[in-house]
Amino acid sequence: MTLPSPYLLFLGDVAEANRAKTGLGIAHWAPDRCIGQNRMPGCAADTGLPDLTPQAAAAAGAKALVSGVAPQGGAIPEHWHPALLAALDAGLDLISGMHTRLSDIQPVAETAKSLGRRLFDVRHTDLDIPSANGLKRPGKRCLMVGLDSALGKKWAALALTQEMKSRGENATFRATGQTGIIIAGQGIAIDAVVADFIAGAAEILSPSNDHDHWDIIEGQGSIFHGAYGGVSLGLLHGSQPDAMVLCAHAGRTHLELLPHIAHRPLGQAISVHEQLARITNPAATVVGISVNTSSLKADDAARAHLDKIAHETGLPTTDPIRFGCAELANALQTII
Amino acid sequence: MTLPSPYLLFLGDVAEANRAKTGLGIAHWAPDRCIGQNRMPGCAADTGLPDLTPQAAAAAGAKALVSGVAPQGGAIPEHWHPALLAALDAGLDLISGMHTRLSDIQPVAETAKSLGRRLFDVRHTDLDIPSANGLKRPGKRCLMVGLDSALGKKWAALALTQEMKSRGENATFRATGQTGIIIAGQGIAIDAVVADFIAGAAEILSPSNDHDHWDIIEGQGSIFHGAYGGVSLGLLHGSQPDAMVLCAHAGRTHLELLPHIAHRPLGQAISVHEQLARITNPAATVVGISVNTSSLKADDAARAHLDKIAHETGLPTTDPIRFGCAELANALQTII
Repeated sequence: MTLPSPYLLFLGDVAEANRAKTGLGIAHWAPDRCIGQNRMPGCAADTGLPDLTPQAAAAAGAKALVSGVAPQGGAIPEHWHPALLAALDAGLDLISGMHTRLSDIQPVAETAKSLGRRLFDVRHTDLDIPSANGLKRPGKRCLMVGLDSALGKKWAALALTQEMKSRGENATFRATGQTGIIIAGQGIAIDAVVADFIAGAAEILSPSNDHDHWDIIEGQGSIFHGAYGGVSLGLLHGSQPDAMVLCAHAGRTHLELLPHIAHRPLGQAISVHEQLARITNPAATVVGISVNTSSLKADDAARAHLDKIAHETGLPTTDPIRFGCAELANALQTII
Repeated sequence: MTLPSPYLLFLGDVAEANRAKTGLGIAHWAPDRCIGQNRMPGCAADTGLPDLTPQAAAAAGAKALVSGVAPQGGAIPEHWHPALLAALDAGLDLISGMHTRLSDIQPVAETAKSLGRRLFDVRHTDLDIPSANGLKRPGKRCLMVGLDSALGKKWAALALTQEMKSRGENATFRATGQTGIIIAGQGIAIDAVVADFIAGAAEILSPSNDHDHWDIIEGQGSIFHGAYGGVSLGLLHGSQPDAMVLCAHAGRTHLELLPHIAHRPLGQAISVHEQLARITNPAATVVGISVNTSSLKADDAARAHLDKIAHETGLPTTDPIRFGCAELANALQTII
């Protein structure tokens, strides 16, 4: 799935900035893909991009309106429909990462059809995906794995890709979820494929490449997640990672979505990931730890937490957003 | 999905008995669900059931014609269509476990519609499945896990269910694949659900039950399978097994479908399965080993192979089809 860009980011009239975190993330990580934001009166979020009408954005070269909001309940509220229709009218395609399909909103579907606009629902995939063949592909791969879902795997992968590029390395961020796909302009929503084809989708996502090229793969969930572990294991096998970065969260001891299940200890997580990853890549190794320290206000406290984990695991440990990821990039550069 | 029965088993005109192994398995494990077989001239397979026309079967109470054949290429050949149409005409519904949907065969779909017959494609699921909640359900569960796919998990589960029932235990076989579903008359094709809902489907498959009731769950693939591991892990988490039986194959050292990938050692397989299963059931334990010894002709050689594994693992080890599964049932009965 390759998306038309540049984007006009639609933020609706969200009452809290956090409800527009998809849009904020896109503006932060893909500024060259964004031309402006489109907000309704009362919107509490601000990406810092210029406020543009769909007409002005189209005139400035925008190709699509991207829904950058996560509405409560997952469905697009009716009072946002006019904004979507105005975008179609101005010549823009629509892109959404929400569960509700754009094509299931009748006025949107009808208007898009009559005007010849395209609707991209990146959470859904209509790709014809083969079974995985498990054969080692050329090129290098680093996969984000984790103790839990929603603890910063995507941001860590994006930061690491940026760091590798800044060092002149040939690196590509590979998106496995809706926000990542909109940021990258392409990818596969791994959790939306049929169960038998998870690893097959992961093989397509990071195809054969030059020997010195790095795919930095976003990752999804956790093999220790009671609801979504299957997605994570299929992604692990199909990604054939040479390197894995294990992602943790300083403020969390139990699964965010299943709070009765405790996170596994880091040592066990490293061991089990390596044993399972070596099915498809015998060299697979956890090379570093990425910790989301957003719950620790003082930098000193965050540093102390990272040092403790580095000591415990013997691995480079950082919060990529707070302190950068030089050590993680160093670790990748030692893999020949 | 609950299937209409009794069945008339359709065996086509397969040139080798092995091509009708679905039908042979159904006749063996669900004789009370089968009323006869329907064969075309030249058919090399024989279930031992009476040969009946669809009309005779319907008169004797049959409710559905079951496709018991796995045609080469997965699609139903055109010269079998008249037999399917004759069954619809005689008042039978159709049941298939093949990849091709019955509803995609135009004359079959049209005839079924005009006569009001139902078409059951058990490999596909239209169920609305929720995400797993990971909450421990009452009742006991035993899941077949394995080093590989296609090495006897289904037959082991069926034999163990039979043994438990013969001891007066309250036990139910839970089917996770197409042949198992036709044998049981219900179940969910776990590998056909959307990736995010594998564990959710497994939770539905073995719902809350009496404290002393055992679900014996068929199992699918292997967490060590490079193509289908995600299915197996989602099933493991959603099944919340109290007990696991690890299934191996005496004649195989590498994955049948990905022959460049070696089977993991038994000790490692036990350890990793227990670590991952304990996410949703802290008591989960591998209680025995089931070995498919069909590649060893002499019973002595098979016994020696099983003894070696029992010694190596310290666990009861049997070939459930060849030597029964008394030891496995004993192991389950010690779990209170």
